[in-house]
Formats: sequence, structure tokens, C-alpha cells
Amino acid sequence: MAAVGVSTPRRDSEPKVRGTTRFAADAPVAGLLHARLVLAHEAHAMISEIRREAALALEGVVAVLTAADLPLVATGRGRQYEPLAREEVIYAGQPVAMVVAESEARAEDGAELVEVELEPLEPVLDLEAAGRPGAPRARVTGLDDADGSDLGDAHATVSAAGVGQEEELSENVLDTARLSNGDVDAALAGSHVVVSGRFTTPWMYQGYLEPQTATAWLDPDGRLTIWSATQATFSTRDALARLFGLPGERVRVASTPLGGAFGGKLMIIDPLVAAAAVVLRRPVRLVMTRSEDMAAANPAGAEMLSLELGADADGNLTGIRTRVLVDRGATDDFGVESIAAMLSCGSYRWAAHELTALGIATNRVTFGAYRAPTAPPAAFAVESLLDELAGRLEIDPLELRLRNVAGEGDRSPAGPPFPIFGARDCLERLRDHPRWSARGELPDGEGIGVALGWWPGGYEPAAAACRLDADGNLTVITGAADMSGVETGFATIAAEAFGIDPERIRVVTADTSSAPYAGMSGGSKVTYTVGRAVERAAIEARERLFEVASQELEIAPEDLEIVDGAVRPAGVPAKGLAIDELASRILQFGSPHPPVEGHGRVSQPQAPQSAAHLSHVRVDRDTGAVTVLAHVVAQDVGRALNPALVEGQMRGGTVQGLGWALLEQLVHDGHGQLTTGTFVDYAMPTAGTVPAIDTEIVEVPVPEGPYGAKGVGEAPVVAVAGAVANAIAAATGGVRVRELPMTPERVWRALAAHPRPGGAPDRAPQSL
Amino acid sequence: MAAVGVSTPRRDSEPKVRGTTRFAADAPVAGLLHARLVLAHEAHAMISEIRREAALALEGVVAVLTAADLPLVATGRGRQYEPLAREEVIYAGQPVAMVVAESEARAEDGAELVEVELEPLEPVLDLEAAGRPGAPRARVTGLDDADGSDLGDAHATVSAAGVGQEEELSENVLDTARLSNGDVDAALAGSHVVVSGRFTTPWMYQGYLEPQTATAWLDPDGRLTIWSATQATFSTRDALARLFGLPGERVRVASTPLGGAFGGKLMIIDPLVAAAAVVLRRPVRLVMTRSEDMAAANPAGAEMLSLELGADADGNLTGIRTRVLVDRGATDDFGVESIAAMLSCGSYRWAAHELTALGIATNRVTFGAYRAPTAPPAAFAVESLLDELAGRLEIDPLELRLRNVAGEGDRSPAGPPFPIFGARDCLERLRDHPRWSARGELPDGEGIGVALGWWPGGYEPAAAACRLDADGNLTVITGAADMSGVETGFATIAAEAFGIDPERIRVVTADTSSAPYAGMSGGSKVTYTVGRAVERAAIEARERLFEVASQELEIAPEDLEIVDGAVRPAGVPAKGLAIDELASRILQFGSPHPPVEGHGRVSQPQAPQSAAHLSHVRVDRDTGAVTVLAHVVAQDVGRALNPALVEGQMRGGTVQGLGWALLEQLVHDGHGQLTTGTFVDYAMPTAGTVPAIDTEIVEVPVPEGPYGAKGVGEAPVVAVAGAVANAIAAATGGVRVRELPMTPERVWRALAAHPRPGGAPDRAPQSL
Repeated sequence: MAAVGVSTPRRDSEPKVRGTTRFAADAPVAGLLHARLVLAHEAHAMISEIRREAALALEGVVAVLTAADLPLVATGRGRQYEPLAREEVIYAGQPVAMVVAESEARAEDGAELVEVELEPLEPVLDLEAAGRPGAPRARVTGLDDADGSDLGDAHATVSAAGVGQEEELSENVLDTARLSNGDVDAALAGSHVVVSGRFTTPWMYQGYLEPQTATAWLDPDGRLTIWSATQATFSTRDALARLFGLPGERVRVASTPLGGAFGGKLMIIDPLVAAAAVVLRRPVRLVMTRSEDMAAANPAGAEMLSLELGADADGNLTGIRTRVLVDRGATDDFGVESIAAMLSCGSYRWAAHELTALGIATNRVTFGAYRAPTAPPAAFAVESLLDELAGRLEIDPLELRLRNVAGEGDRSPAGPPFPIFGARDCLERLRDHPRWSARGELPDGEGIGVALGWWPGGYEPAAAACRLDADGNLTVITGAADMSGVETGFATIAAEAFGIDPERIRVVTADTSSAPYAGMSGGSKVTYTVGRAVERAAIEARERLFEVASQELEIAPEDLEIVDGAVRPAGVPAKGLAIDELASRILQFGSPHPPVEGHGRVSQPQAPQSAAHLSHVRVDRDTGAVTVLAHVVAQDVGRALNPALVEGQMRGGTVQGLGWALLEQLVHDGHGQLTTGTFVDYAMPTAGTVPAIDTEIVEVPVPEGPYGAKGVGEAPVVAVAGAVANAIAAATGGVRVRELPMTPERVWRALAAHPRPGGAPDRAPQSL
Repeated sequence: MAAVGVSTPRRDSEPKVRGTTRFAADAPVAGLLHARLVLAHEAHAMISEIRREAALALEGVVAVLTAADLPLVATGRGRQYEPLAREEVIYAGQPVAMVVAESEARAEDGAELVEVELEPLEPVLDLEAAGRPGAPRARVTGLDDADGSDLGDAHATVSAAGVGQEEELSENVLDTARLSNGDVDAALAGSHVVVSGRFTTPWMYQGYLEPQTATAWLDPDGRLTIWSATQATFSTRDALARLFGLPGERVRVASTPLGGAFGGKLMIIDPLVAAAAVVLRRPVRLVMTRSEDMAAANPAGAEMLSLELGADADGNLTGIRTRVLVDRGATDDFGVESIAAMLSCGSYRWAAHELTALGIATNRVTFGAYRAPTAPPAAFAVESLLDELAGRLEIDPLELRLRNVAGEGDRSPAGPPFPIFGARDCLERLRDHPRWSARGELPDGEGIGVALGWWPGGYEPAAAACRLDADGNLTVITGAADMSGVETGFATIAAEAFGIDPERIRVVTADTSSAPYAGMSGGSKVTYTVGRAVERAAIEARERLFEVASQELEIAPEDLEIVDGAVRPAGVPAKGLAIDELASRILQFGSPHPPVEGHGRVSQPQAPQSAAHLSHVRVDRDTGAVTVLAHVVAQDVGRALNPALVEGQMRGGTVQGLGWALLEQLVHDGHGQLTTGTFVDYAMPTAGTVPAIDTEIVEVPVPEGPYGAKGVGEAPVVAVAGAVANAIAAATGGVRVRELPMTPERVWRALAAHPRPGGAPDRAPQSL
């Protein structure tokens, strides 16, 4: 392998550092108008009136659009169908009007002049209460819009085949999922030890640097074009076509380089700018402010998880019952109940399980995808309890996990057996790590914890093309929005498959008008799926090149090789023909050779991912402050195509996980107003607070991935909070915090409530 | 065949009629600057000084660029290397400076204020004299620029293998070609009849509606992007990369819809706007005015053709000797000597031939490609003489041609045998046409003539992609600049190959960053080459669709068919699955099927084309005015994919041929100044003067073409002037005009010099 396994810098790093990357907000567009949103100031209300006269009187304001002005023809579930509130406001920050003006400043001025009169309703904010039968509804109008599957549809019962349980639910329940196997009651009853707990996790913001941004215009022939900071070109195109009643070909979506996304950049503002462009017939751009983005974009919802699980005396896991309440917020955008249920038991062999998840509507923004959706809360809960179980059984916590971890062929929570799966290898890597061996030698107040996380991995069909250019360089063309350095990864794959230096590979993200199909860049699947298509395309192009070289050199293709940028008879350097020379012979008027191009198309099975974490913390018993002193992440990546990039993902995921563990939360007050809507209020990890992170790359190759690689983006975030929680417990003689983030106050309160080993409880917590 | 052979309107017609087509000058570009050229007012001069101060003082003028300001790093033959004159002006109208301003009007004002001081040199304007040894040179400086193949290189001798003749030539001779076979002297000496003549044809303007237009800018990362009304995306990209010393990937060329081109739109102004954008780091557009375009763009050069040819008493052609002087103008852009020599003997079987062409530099603009370059003059000459030969032999002129026309396997003038070739079929179609049968019954002053033309056809590797979209429509992606309705043709081909309605095919011309390779749209090869690649791509996509449908329907792929937009078991409509349903099952998260896409790559042999013309004219003996009363064109098109489009090409070519025959000429005065530089002075055919044109489609399928099709663009222009000349002779008892266009004055002078059959000559011409 000449390219695979070699660490090279990300191609997008230098332009980003130099400031030459053209993000969505940077594209120059002639005649551009700027939009600014008017956000609702109540969490739940009826709209009495929207007065636009003052705004429209302002010079430079072109239009003030409200829901009735948007030329949408489709209805259905999800915010895309209602990008501006119609009659009812269902969360604080919901866009109710859009001011479009000749400059961004003038649009801002105009937005301040729009008067929105609201008739407040009681907001539904308590997640548990909202899920109880008879709860007031988080939405009272427009319930029949959603193609027969409206908000009220899923309210009746949770019942899964073979279980026979029924439960009356609130009309706020958007969807439910239950996975079960075996007799959980019997399994728990027969257990040597049973532990249980109730865990809560907050609303979480992705924290990308670039806010939601999109620009739309109509071509003179009426074609709608969007330049968007989106993770999904084709599905955005198809969704917009549906919304506006256009054939798919009449919409063109180009993804711009993403300034971070983490799952959050999917059809949030595209309908708004597109609608404005259609109405006004001029280009329109919308760049959310940071506070708008935090209040009204796509954060992950809060969760409450109740788990009960057991083991026999030898530490074999018996039964598990879980119930996950997911705060889906105001709109049914993203159904996560199945995955939330599935992930709530970890990747272990359970004799019996019953996993239930309920998605509940409240008057908060809307649950969006954020790096391994629902997985960090699940791992926080189940990995905390497994540690407790190990303690009760007096088994080493890593040993307990190794005894029960699922492997290839074991039944997955959803039923089908796991495919090849490196969770055990990750745990073993931690077991053999010097930090684990040294865990008994820590000073007082320090502790080491471990946790295991997994992510099932997305899959979606993908295609890619490779084209040899006249200068002998190879162009790789895909429709995959560039995230996480996929461009660099594609270059590695194509270089390896074609047989030239990665520097001679150019990677192009084409727009939907001409790109080979690619699904959204999400679900940890771009390298796995599109990368595999790139590999096939490059192999095909190489075969074509050999066909031409075979004619030019009069040697059978199977006797040729590529060395140092030349095609030559195997072992005969002197007879080589440089690829650029061959390319220029091929690509000219009157050439007898077809172009050297290749095209790859794939669909593959899921390739689950896992990462195990070891966290070493110090807990200040006086303040409750937790300092992470060191952290190890061991992740099964299938194959590290570019170890530097893989380590970047592992570190980045770990850092976001530390945010989950210790710092981050979108807090809504008793009126549903976001109180942490700036980066001053919303604490994120910074370079100064992140410890050294050791990365342990585990390679268990996946047969269907390019050179054995699989997705690496989501797995590393999953189990960080669990590991930190277990480390806190280890540092404090077993003090358990069951609420994220584990802020100093929460840790201090837990410490105060907990008897110090061999002593009295700490003094009772004071009101802060 | 459901799509092939069906006449459908051109897809680009309606948007062009409605005015929604976005031509190169219509693209909105933020921060756009406008360029205007300062043209030289002498045909040959040294540049003493260019004073820019006054222009630069004008508000809104951003820069006045001269040759020294352009950041070109490559040297070579051709205007692209010297888009602004350096020290020497070599034709009147040559750009010497470029003013760039905030508006087009201000650039125009600025250009008027640039003072260009020239030191005149004697212009070289007489084509014959310029070719004689010792002639003054049309260029005296910069002769060593051209990579060792400069203007002086080809001056020494004309000598072809086996001929042994040598001839001293002028240093103005840019290149020569000689094709010979057999002993021409002996063949002519042994002939029963020998005829000879000397023919001249003028400089000719393509007459496209849209003048040369291009816009260039630098992306923030430094990538050079050109939106150009160009026929050649990839070769423009590669040429610009070479010029500016950039890797190919750092240049992106997008072809805009062409408002006509006919061969003329190739790298004329792209280097100028690109250089200005590179220097100024802002977007720059240049749209030539009509007069600039006529004076300084890419017209076809004048020619002088001397032919001598013979036949035996039975009408079998014996020997032919030709000598073609081509006025290449000031710069060595486009070497046409080989093709000019080859075409000068027509597509006939000659016992012996010696065909010579010399390209000679003069102080006129520069010879550019124009629909079948050098073919109309060649056919005008040889077809006129063949008619004379038939008259001398008292053989029917069509019969003479049929006796000698080349067919498959006959030696071509260049040596290799003709492939399958429909010239005979075209002649037979005319022979059987009622207008030919009725030629004896015409009133006095009317006549019918025929002529045969051919074009060897271009070939170049090509690729294309097809993609099934989620809505069940098929997108065809190529890099071929859209000319002559190729988009419509691709839709026909893809519809036929994939098996759906052409309305469900979308055709996309991608830019060089992501398009499959395609050569320039020229040489009558887009449908033949790229169209064939489209066919293969669509067939491959259909196979992929059947693989998916086979799994979904659990039926073997070979038992499936596509009917009415659904895939179904052959003959079982009830079990069909609509393609849009299949597509939406395929293109989604979690789908097990790979995308349905196809990719085609081809290289093919040349596919020569031919068209025979019959022209019916009336000659006014008092004024010399020629009226074309009717015209028939019989053309071998291989296979008419869309007969309406093919007929459009046949009619359009014929109309341009009538321009050659009777109307058009770019006239330069004794100082080398263009005197017909507006459409007031340059006479083109108009709807009022064009007769009804009967089209006779002849189909001799080419095995390598899509459904047997080959190029149709160039052949129909070739023999029009020859047919009209022969018709004039038929109408006037044999009066021959040997100079194009056959204006009333020239016809009248020829009539005056010719004895009226059975009478005295007409009165001697008066000076007009």
C-alpha cells in the first residue's frame, strides 16, 4: 500500500487557515438580497397579527414575508413544510416572518420593526408530564397536515409484537418504538444482582463554527438554484422540488464547504431562501446569527432514560428493561425512537431485553441530528449502570464488559446478528493500556473510568466517477458534501486504486445537476459508501488506462504496472510511458483511444462502529469541579486510510463528548425561553480545558469498505460521558451523577449527598 | 424504435424564443468589470507608443492593459499566445490594448481615449505575391516565439515522399501539404479531355448572432473560472492552463449556450478576459461588438485554387493536379493545408492525383474554422470543372459523377480506403428527383445544376454519464458544448437506449471540473462521438435498473422489459413497477440497491459525410442578378435520429452555402482595412431571398454511430456554390463564374465576355 495508511494533512486545512475557502456566505452573487428572520417571542401562542408596515416603509426593505406568502404546495411532517409559523407559534424562536432587504443591516433594521402580536398559550415544557395521557398539547392547530401521519397519529399505544403490553399515551407522543427479546421479568428476577437508575441529558447544540447559511436564486429559465451549507445535496434537491411542486431537474443544489455541521445542517433554512427567491425573483441569502442558530436551528433534544438491568453471579448479563423519553421539541422532523431504543442496552449480549422509546412533543425547538443521535445519552446510562453492576459483583469493570460484549454473529438488539465488529478489540486495547494498568496507583481524588460505545452506521447507495485529464492527473467526482476531510480520504483511496501519488488526484464535489448520486454526508458513511464507489471507479479507470497502454506499448494489459507515474511492462522501467504522455495522446482530436474514465456504484450492508474510552479525572470535593487529566480512545475504524484524519475524528469526537460530559446544555426557562443562547452562556470545551487524548486505532477490516475502512465520525463521541462518569465514581468512592452535563454544582450536590467512604456525609449542599 | 426517427422540436428553441436562455453575456456576476478592446488602425506597423493616461484618468476606468501587462508564461504559434499585439501590428483590427472599467460604457469611453501611435509598414495583402520567394514578410518580429516551429519554419520547400519536386517558397508560407498518387502528368497526357481553371473565394464571416463573449474570474482559492461562449470546454481549459502556467485543475471552463458558432468560437477572447481577471483579481467580461467580431475574430480565409483534370472518352476520370493557396492571415492559428489539399479533388476515384496546398501569411486577421473549413471553395472549383468536363464529353453531369464517385473501399485522396460512404446514394437521390427529370423543360434564362460535396468528419474520444434520479427521470451528463441541438439529440438517444419517453430525459452540460470528457463541439462529431457514449451509458443504466427490478420483482433480468415508464415481466403489465417508484426505493438512506447510473466511453473511426445539391436558378442577363428558385439537398446522415433537426442542419447549411455562392465577402481595401465590417455592408442570405429547400434524407447507417447516425453539420454547406455555379452555366449556355461570391456584377461581366449561343457576345462590360 502506497497511499492507504499514510498520514497526510487534510486538503481543506490550508485554504481554511488562509481564509480562501469560500463558505456559503462568501459566494459572490450579483443582485443579492439579504434576509433576516423575525422570531417568535413566546414558546406557545396563537398569532393575532403581524404588522409589517413600518418595516416595509424602511428604504431598502424589499419584502416582509409571512407564512401565507410562501409558495409551498406540499404538506407533511417536519419544519420544511412550515418554515414560517402559520397560525400557531410552537416554540420560542420559531421564525414567524422574514424581512428581505438590499443589505443585511437593512434587513436587520426591518426585522426589528415587524410587530408580531401573540396570544400566549400555556407552553408544554415538562417532558414526563407531556407524555402522560390527558396532557395539554404542545400544538393545537394544523394537526391534519401531515399526509395522514400527523402529530396525533402515534398517540394510542405502545405495543410490540409478542409483548402484548399496552399503555395509554399522551397525544404529544409523536412516535414510539419497542424492541424486545425473551422474558425480561424472569431474567431480572433470576439475577444475582440488579441495578437501576434514571438519567437525564439536556438539549445540546452542535456548536459548528459556521451558522446555517443558504443562498437561492432562480435562473432565467426558472430553475431554482441553492448554494447551501448543507450535508445533503440530493435529498435537499428532492425535498425542495416536492415543496415547490417542481420536477427534480428544476432544482439544483450545490453544497458549499461546511464550517462544521455534525448532523445539524439539513433543510433548516433552504425552504426559506428558496421561497423568497421564488417570490421575489431575485437572489436571496440568509445567514443565521449565532443566537438564532442556537434558538431555532437543529439541536439534539433532551432525554430521560430509566434502566433496570441484571447479571448472574459470574457476571453474565441477564435482562435489561429500558424506557427512554425523548424530547422531540415542537415538530416531528426526525424520528429517533427506534435508534434510541436500540442503543439503550449497549452492544452486549443480553439474555432478554425490552427496550422502549417514546418521542414526545414539547414547546421547544425541534430534535435534530447531532453526531450519533441518542447514542451519548444511552451510553451514559447503560455504561454507568454496568460499572455499578461490576462494583456490586466485585468484578473488574473492563472484565465485565469483555465477558459480555457482542461480537460477530451475536444477536443485535434489533434482531439480526452483528456483522464483523471490533468492540471487543477496543476493550482489549484499553485493558492493555498502561493507564489502565496504573489505575490503582492514583492519588486521592483521582479516578479512572472506562466505557464502551457503539454506533450502527448508516448506509445509502453511492456512485462516483474518475476521469484522467490531459495533464495526467486524475479527477474524482462525487456528489458528497465535503465534511470531515472526505476529500482527502477520496484522494487516498483513488491514489491507491489507480496507482499514482495522491497529489495527482483532484477531488470535485459536483452539484446535483451533474454529480454521481451520493446520499447525505452523515451517518458515518461517506468514506464507507462513496469512498467504496471511488475505489471502484479508480480501479475501472486503471483498467481502461492499461487497455490504452497495452495498445501503445504492444504488451498485454496483465503484464503492465504503474510505477512512478508511468505505465510500464512489469519490471522494465525503460519501456515505461508517463501517464501524462499517455493522457495527452488519448485526449485529442483524432485519437483512437476512448477517454480513461471509471464509474463506481455501490450499496453495502451496515458496518457498526465502536469506540471504548478511558478517562482519568480529578474531582475537587470542595467545588465539585472535575478536571480530565488524560483520556484514551480506542476505536475500531476498520482500516485507517489516513491515520492523521482518523485520529482527528477520534479526538474531535472525544472533545465533543467531554462537552456532553461536563459542560454543554441548552437551558430553557419556565416559559420555554432559551437562556443559554450565546457562546458566553453555552459552555463548550476549549483547547485549554481539553486534556491530552491518546488515540488507539483498532483495525478490524470490513470486507465491503474501501480497503477495509468504515465510518469513524460518530463512534468516538458516544461513550465519553459514560467514561467520565465512571471515572468520577472511581475518584469519589462511588459517587454517581446521573444528569448531564456533570457540572461542578451537580457533582458537588452528589458528593454532599453521598457518605464519604469510612466517614460521615459531606456537609449538606447549600443553596447556590 | 420509439424515439429514434421521430421529429421533435429542439429543446433550446422555446427558451431562446422566450428570451430566457442565459447566454455568456447574460450571466449575472457580482462585482463584474467590463472590458473593451483598442484595435490597431493599421494593417502592418510597429507600435511606437500606447498612451493610456487620458483613459486612466476617466472615472470608472480600472485599468488599461497592454501586452506587457498580461501574465502569460507560454509561447507558441497562434493568437492565444499574443492576445494583444506586442511590438508589431500585423492586421488592421488587431487588439493592442484592453480597457477595463466598472461599466461597459465607461470602458468604451476609455478605449476611445487610448492613443496608439503606430509606425506603418507596407502591408502584405496580395496572396499570390506573398507566396513568391523574396516577398516582403507579413511579420518581421517575434518569429522565434513558437516553440521551434515558428512562422519561418515551413518556408523552405514543398516536397512530398515519392514526388521529388522542389519549389522555393516565400518566408510567408506557414505550412504546405501535398498528397499524390500515380503519375499525374501521364494520366493527363493520356486523357481524352482535359479542363482547367483558376478559382478564387473570399474571406468569409460565420455570421453567428452572438458575438465572441467570455467572462473570467478568480475564485478565492485562486482557481481561474471562465464562462465562455466556446465550442470547446476541455481544450480551452488545457490551453489556458498552459498559457498561465497552472495545473489543469486550477482552471474551470463552463460553456454557455451558444448563439451560433460554426467553428469560430475557439480561444479567441478567453485569454484576454482570463489575463485581465488574473491581473485585476476581479471578474471581467468582454463582449465583442459586431464590427470588432467581423474585423478581429475568426473568419475563414480567402483561397485561390488552380485545378487541371481529365477524363477518358468514356467519362472515367484520369488525373487531377491542384494547387490551393490559402490566405491564412496574420497568425498561424489553424493549419488547414492537409485538408485543403485533400478536399481539392472531390470524393471521386482518380487514376492519379497531385494535390498541393500552401498556407500563406498576409496582413489580414487570421484564418479560422468555419463549417467545413476549405471544403466550399474546393467543391466550387472541382464541381465546376467536372460540369465542364461532362459538357465537353457530352455526358450527363450527374451520370459523370455517378460513374466516378468513390464508395466504400475506394482509395481516399489521403490514402486509406473510404469506409462506408453514401455519396453515390445522394447522387442517385438527385437523379431520381422530379426537379432533375424536369430540367429540360425550363424557360429561357433558367438552369439547373448539381454538385457533390463531402466532409471527412472529425473524431475525438468522448465519454458520457446517465443517472436515474429519485423522480424516475434520467439525467444525461456530458461536457459537450451545446450546438446545433445536440441536447435534443442526446435526449433521443438516451430515451431509445434506456426505454423511456424523451420528455423524461434531462441533458446537462457540465463544466470541466466535473464533466465526463468531450472534445470540442465541432467537426460534425458531437452526435457521432458523444452521442455514442450517451447510448452506451444509457444501455448500462438500463442494465443496472433491470438488476434492481429483478431483485424487487424476483424475476430474471432477461425476462424484463420497460413499457410505459414501468419495468415489468415481459408481457405482464399488471406486475410492472413504475420507474419512479423503483428509483425512490433505490435512492434512499438504507436502500440495499446501488444507484442506477451508466457511463459510456468511446473512440471511433472517421465517418465521412456527403451531400449532393441541385440548384435551380434564373439569371437576369441585363443585371447579372441570380435568383435561386428552388434547391434540393440530398444528404447521407447515417441515420436521422430526429429528422426535424437533421433537416434544420441541411437547410441551415444550404442557406450558408447560398451566402458563399452569391452574397458574402469580407473585403479588405488596399491598405488591409476591412470595408464590409457591419451587417449593412456584409450581405448575408435572409428569409426573403432563400428559396424553398427540399431536403432528401439519405440513410446509410454507420456501424460505429449511435443507431447508425453520423455528423450532419458540415456536409450540407460544401457543394452549394458549386451547384449554383453549374446552374448559372446551365441557364446561360455555359457561362462560368470562377469567383465567389457570384455577385450580379461578376455574373454580368462573365455574361458580357461570353458569346451568346448562336450570336455575338453581349455588349462589352461598362465600367461600373
